[in-house]
Amino acid sequence: MNILLHSVYIITMDEEGPTSVINGFVIIKHGEFDQVKEGKPSQEELNNASEVINGKGKWLIPGLINTHGHLGSSLLRGAGDDIPLMKWLETVMWPNEKTFTEDIIKKAVSLAMVEMVKSGTTTFLDMYHLHMETVAQLAQESEMRAVLCRGMIGLCSEKEQRNKLSEAINLHRDVHGMNSGKITVALSPHAPYTCPPSFLQMIIEKAKENNIWIHTHLSETEEEVIKHKEQYGLRPVEHMERIGLFQVPCLVAHAVHLSDNEITILKENNVSVSHNPMSNLKLGSGIAPIPQMISKGINISLGTDSTASNNNLDMFEEVRFAALLHKGISKDPTITKTWDILRMAMENGAKALQLQQLGKIKKGYKADFLLIDPNSAHLTPWDKDRIHSHLVYSAKGFDVSDVFVQGKQLMRSKELLFLDEEKVIYEANSFLHS
Amino acid sequence: MNILLHSVYIITMDEEGPTSVINGFVIIKHGEFDQVKEGKPSQEELNNASEVINGKGKWLIPGLINTHGHLGSSLLRGAGDDIPLMKWLETVMWPNEKTFTEDIIKKAVSLAMVEMVKSGTTTFLDMYHLHMETVAQLAQESEMRAVLCRGMIGLCSEKEQRNKLSEAINLHRDVHGMNSGKITVALSPHAPYTCPPSFLQMIIEKAKENNIWIHTHLSETEEEVIKHKEQYGLRPVEHMERIGLFQVPCLVAHAVHLSDNEITILKENNVSVSHNPMSNLKLGSGIAPIPQMISKGINISLGTDSTASNNNLDMFEEVRFAALLHKGISKDPTITKTWDILRMAMENGAKALQLQQLGKIKKGYKADFLLIDPNSAHLTPWDKDRIHSHLVYSAKGFDVSDVFVQGKQLMRSKELLFLDEEKVIYEANSFLHS
Repeated sequence: MNILLHSVYIITMDEEGPTSVINGFVIIKHGEFDQVKEGKPSQEELNNASEVINGKGKWLIPGLINTHGHLGSSLLRGAGDDIPLMKWLETVMWPNEKTFTEDIIKKAVSLAMVEMVKSGTTTFLDMYHLHMETVAQLAQESEMRAVLCRGMIGLCSEKEQRNKLSEAINLHRDVHGMNSGKITVALSPHAPYTCPPSFLQMIIEKAKENNIWIHTHLSETEEEVIKHKEQYGLRPVEHMERIGLFQVPCLVAHAVHLSDNEITILKENNVSVSHNPMSNLKLGSGIAPIPQMISKGINISLGTDSTASNNNLDMFEEVRFAALLHKGISKDPTITKTWDILRMAMENGAKALQLQQLGKIKKGYKADFLLIDPNSAHLTPWDKDRIHSHLVYSAKGFDVSDVFVQGKQLMRSKELLFLDEEKVIYEANSFLHS
Repeated sequence: MNILLHSVYIITMDEEGPTSVINGFVIIKHGEFDQVKEGKPSQEELNNASEVINGKGKWLIPGLINTHGHLGSSLLRGAGDDIPLMKWLETVMWPNEKTFTEDIIKKAVSLAMVEMVKSGTTTFLDMYHLHMETVAQLAQESEMRAVLCRGMIGLCSEKEQRNKLSEAINLHRDVHGMNSGKITVALSPHAPYTCPPSFLQMIIEKAKENNIWIHTHLSETEEEVIKHKEQYGLRPVEHMERIGLFQVPCLVAHAVHLSDNEITILKENNVSVSHNPMSNLKLGSGIAPIPQMISKGINISLGTDSTASNNNLDMFEEVRFAALLHKGISKDPTITKTWDILRMAMENGAKALQLQQLGKIKKGYKADFLLIDPNSAHLTPWDKDRIHSHLVYSAKGFDVSDVFVQGKQLMRSKELLFLDEEKVIYEANSFLHS
């Protein structure tokens, strides 16, 4: 399979500024970009292609990478807003999750996948505790790129802890590398406040033994930090460093409440952060010190969290919040840059998920990309100088017309090719109307 | 003309909660809702209708009301991001605006109108200083509801001040009440920092004399407040009260930096506020104390500001920012309510713009409304309990399929009926490529 896609404006994301926007074509071989070139393809290049696609002047950009979510709870979208976190957990999330069958998880995960592909997400991370082998199956069928984590809460007996960890390790054994490497697996202790140090150490050992990286929630709320200090005499990041968490490659979600020392620890240990601005705002968790972390050189990616706390999975919205929020808080419009924010949803996301050669349009990189139709009032007027700005401040999930992952087309002119959108929506609605 | 629109879920916005969501039909006469009823229409009702529309299970909601913008600068979308306010004004806005011909204004205003109707805005306020009679003509042709203000900066001779005020008063004389009352006019001193007290007093006198209300920018940045105190010994709102601004009905844009006393003054004088969260964030102005103003009972509406500082006019995004921002800042998810935020874009907007019987789906109210297609993953699952939440936390401009203003259809199945979308986008792009 050898795809030639021509007549597109390629936003390579390889270099800041309008010179990295190429009016040209790409050739894709074995799921990777083989050529990224300016101008028109030659007759020979056209002849050698097994499929030729006319991009009709659209923008070609790297696929968006969502580094934190919980797909299994997607059916709880809108089930409880405007209530305090603990009441929300106790009256909405936990009682509902107790009733979740495999069938409900299938409906929820399929719904999330439809929403993600339609709005331009090509890679997602899913941390959930139920039926992750089923999620792997659905991820494979969707042809999306996925990082799957069996989330582990350690507030239970050591026997139960070991069972959970076995499930997580077995998930790695069974599905890591599946679907031509599009599915990978990480280990996910839920959070320091739900996992005692002994359990975390058990997980760290297994991670080292099996060469698996770790994803966890960290320092999401102020209360969490206060309680952690009371219980352990240390702030969460300091404590995690001491027990060895960062000896394994690590991606932490939220990182809202950090001391300067903790920011230094994250940087020194090469820890990536998944910034989830919309979820952090909606739950009243606060605002992560992103500009400070960027200035230290920490790798910041973006995540939506679940639809139960967001309430949508459109990564363009997450980009927009990340771009605007920190300027307003700091009263400094220069504190974050268009380019830095856009990269968070692309190259930085790939790095956070330990995925190589992903997040740019470049020879040798995986061919995960989108076509954006710029013929909308909200993307007008445009030229090479304004494209990056429009992607950050004006573009919407709906502007995505076509989606490719590893060279395979998942959406064509807004029509999903591997997911049955109508059926998925119908079945997800049946959750409320059965 | 007597329209019957059936098979819709009517979100009346007349009362909080699922009981105000009606599965039924509406009858529109003379541009107003004549009936809003549950169930199916009778044969007699069907026979009496000159037009019958099948809503196919869509949501029918009040049209969105954008209470602050500058349409004339729409072509500067993305022309300068991530730079400080004064540098932005001096290097981007002012040099460009100096070159704006009537033709450029036409292109800019038409572009903004296309973007607004497509994303569900039925009413807009436009404050601009160039060619407002032309804007009135375009507003009439678009069939949108519009409040037009000839913006006045008073940093000039008294003669020039009087000329500007004459233009503003003539605009009122010429176009107020035009197009079956859909176009109205207010007076707009630009801001206290650009209008000396003597000029403001001149405007206030004219407003009283001609029974016109006033719209102005107020307390947008911290610097503005500091300088105002230095120059006049009073904070801006306190000063405006003293010089009599609030003796006229008044809508102020931004209101970001307010003392408790100033919030009290706004409430006591029945002043409405246009909250522009995205613009305030992008320019680094700060975050308006919306929860405090809501608790005082101040009427808060929503505005996008211009695409030069937002950079889009999708009111659903503005709703989302207003809904999430204050929860995050205050670290209290209960501090704003879904219902209160949604009303800001509807009933509160109408009140802010001094428009009567607008912003609800109710007998006697103006028939400005949208149909929303709920068959998208991001609005799934839904029932009457979740509709308001989905409108605030998940819906997007693109979900709007049909738009009506005063009973007249402006968009049908996403196709604009009074604006030539393709031509408008083409001509707006020519601004950069000519």
